[in-house]
Amino acid sequence: MYTLNRIDTGVCAADGFFADGINAGLKANDALDMAFIYSDTVCDIASTFTTNKMTAAPIRHFKNKGDFKTNFVMINSKNANAMTGPKGISDIDEILEALEIDGLVNPVMSSTGVIGVRIPKEKIIAGAKKFDLTKREPQNASKAIMTTDSFSKTIAFEVVLEDGSKFHIGAMAKGAGMINPAMATMLCFITTDADIPQNKMQKFLDKTVKTTFNAISVDGDTSTNDTIMLFANKKSGAYHKDAFKGALYEVMKFLALEMVRDGEGATKVVTYNITGAKNDEEAEKVAKALSDSLLVKTALYGEDPNWGRIASTVGASGVTCKESTLKISFNDLCVYDKGEIYFDKAMEVEAAAVMKLPAFTISCDLGIADGKFTAYGCDLGYEYVKINADYRT
Amino acid sequence: MYTLNRIDTGVCAADGFFADGINAGLKANDALDMAFIYSDTVCDIASTFTTNKMTAAPIRHFKNKGDFKTNFVMINSKNANAMTGPKGISDIDEILEALEIDGLVNPVMSSTGVIGVRIPKEKIIAGAKKFDLTKREPQNASKAIMTTDSFSKTIAFEVVLEDGSKFHIGAMAKGAGMINPAMATMLCFITTDADIPQNKMQKFLDKTVKTTFNAISVDGDTSTNDTIMLFANKKSGAYHKDAFKGALYEVMKFLALEMVRDGEGATKVVTYNITGAKNDEEAEKVAKALSDSLLVKTALYGEDPNWGRIASTVGASGVTCKESTLKISFNDLCVYDKGEIYFDKAMEVEAAAVMKLPAFTISCDLGIADGKFTAYGCDLGYEYVKINADYRT
Repeated sequence: MYTLNRIDTGVCAADGFFADGINAGLKANDALDMAFIYSDTVCDIASTFTTNKMTAAPIRHFKNKGDFKTNFVMINSKNANAMTGPKGISDIDEILEALEIDGLVNPVMSSTGVIGVRIPKEKIIAGAKKFDLTKREPQNASKAIMTTDSFSKTIAFEVVLEDGSKFHIGAMAKGAGMINPAMATMLCFITTDADIPQNKMQKFLDKTVKTTFNAISVDGDTSTNDTIMLFANKKSGAYHKDAFKGALYEVMKFLALEMVRDGEGATKVVTYNITGAKNDEEAEKVAKALSDSLLVKTALYGEDPNWGRIASTVGASGVTCKESTLKISFNDLCVYDKGEIYFDKAMEVEAAAVMKLPAFTISCDLGIADGKFTAYGCDLGYEYVKINADYRT
Repeated sequence: MYTLNRIDTGVCAADGFFADGINAGLKANDALDMAFIYSDTVCDIASTFTTNKMTAAPIRHFKNKGDFKTNFVMINSKNANAMTGPKGISDIDEILEALEIDGLVNPVMSSTGVIGVRIPKEKIIAGAKKFDLTKREPQNASKAIMTTDSFSKTIAFEVVLEDGSKFHIGAMAKGAGMINPAMATMLCFITTDADIPQNKMQKFLDKTVKTTFNAISVDGDTSTNDTIMLFANKKSGAYHKDAFKGALYEVMKFLALEMVRDGEGATKVVTYNITGAKNDEEAEKVAKALSDSLLVKTALYGEDPNWGRIASTVGASGVTCKESTLKISFNDLCVYDKGEIYFDKAMEVEAAAVMKLPAFTISCDLGIADGKFTAYGCDLGYEYVKINADYRT
């Protein structure tokens, strides 16, 4: 047994971690656009990155290093340093070499923003001069990494183990999720002082990403820059496997749902609860087909209980399913049950009321076997078009 | 050699075919909502249908018949007769049995519209009483099958063979295409008096659909009702394999592009010309990923030459590709070439000018091998959201 106490210190929750955000002139209006996370001792790192073949320069730069420990990551928004060729990589080398900060061990750089433009080295280098590694301003850091996000996203827990020992885990993320989550770039930085064995870090991260960030993601539609990094400096001396896994899941699920909630132009968060599929993989396929369907998303935006589009999307998803075994519910209201229609005007009124809620669950029981998966999505409205029709300008 | 002469008689172009559209009170405002195509002799049929597992009743009804010939197909809009269970099938039997029209052989029914509502039998039966099988009103027929279409879609050719003999091919289609083409239901009816051997019909149809309707379609994202039917009454006595295949391709490509042009809320038609892929399948995967990407579609709508989103979508499509071999062009303007960026302000102005055109080509040469595919797409704007946020109401 263990207890999770929510605290508000974000990536600075764990002992020995510092963070801040500054303005380097990348964004207009003096908005924060560069952040750092620093640990006063070196950290073990676990990471997961985009599967996009046009991997951005900062990710290739990171991977080129092989295994390493670090105590510093610097993040800029507004420029993704993607599709920038070998120059994108050498730009990072030049930037990191030019940093006049003492005591950095293998500094890491991460970027998000527009694709295909050389990173403004001078501005970045000048910006880094403003970093003060003694600062603990996790909110500034989380604001500095935002792009189309409408709010910053942080979470932290104090984890109390049965013997009274404690460790901390904190994180910040950016990404205005669900709607093409990946293309809009998701970044997530997690810090912990748990005394977690190095060989467990990557394993736990890989496993937890499946039911959290990947549950809001569309298979194979990942951006050039998607990044999750977990930094552990072991300072607390405390560790318990289940407690760490539990805390990591809560941190990552919270931030994943924050991204959905902040979906570009989104007005509601929908949980897609798929059961009765042939297996978990098929359930996942259905859940993602639904959370990704333009017609379902626009029906959600219109608050139209158009369950026919849900049925059609299930049928088109390529999984084993039948009209005669399918069941569809909006929260507890069953709107379709195994081929017998009983969706009348009264029920439509009830269903429409559910759809007006800011958050609700659409359940599909495929009635085939025991496969299940839960995904999270949002609606698509005019604002999405507005945001994306002129993102660059 | 053969000559195609475009004529304007749609599905009545071929000898012995009749068609009309009437109002049966399914749509509001006395709009045409039921159509028929009738041949005064029985026809061989070839057909392709949706792969959606929630196949609509009319398609299951058709398939249940096994091999058959017919001289009559009746189409209604406004109700898809999908997700209606066994009752949806028996409703069709009841409707077809109640038709008081002499001389029908194996009459066929096809439907498009809202999913999950029982078909209004009485209205349909009463509507069919208005059919006059001596009418040749192909424009009325094509209007009657429209749903969210903003214009009707027909084409016809007189095909003149080298020996002076002639046959005809005509067609009508509905579907406000590209944007989730299939979910919005695509119907296409093709009539011909060519003396085509029965055993070639299905083969040619299957082959031609790949480079036409499937080039505007998203793999596996097909609606409950998608249907293409080809009716041949052989009346002309004329036939030539290449001429028929050529004419069929022109008919189907024209109608497929009409669907893109009529894409819900679309303001431009974009041709995605993919070359240099590992093989044709990978080229198709890239072309469809691009024509289907929300971020690409919204950039098109915003007339923003954001080639970074194109590169990122190529990279995320799962095919073999590299930043260092990729080339991207907007019409003849190359905006990215093998990792060396030379996209400057002047080029941006040029690229933005291309994007203001109502139709243009985005070419991606992957630089890997010789695979190629051409797909057709459109942009996504506010109007798409508007149409789909309250389609039913």
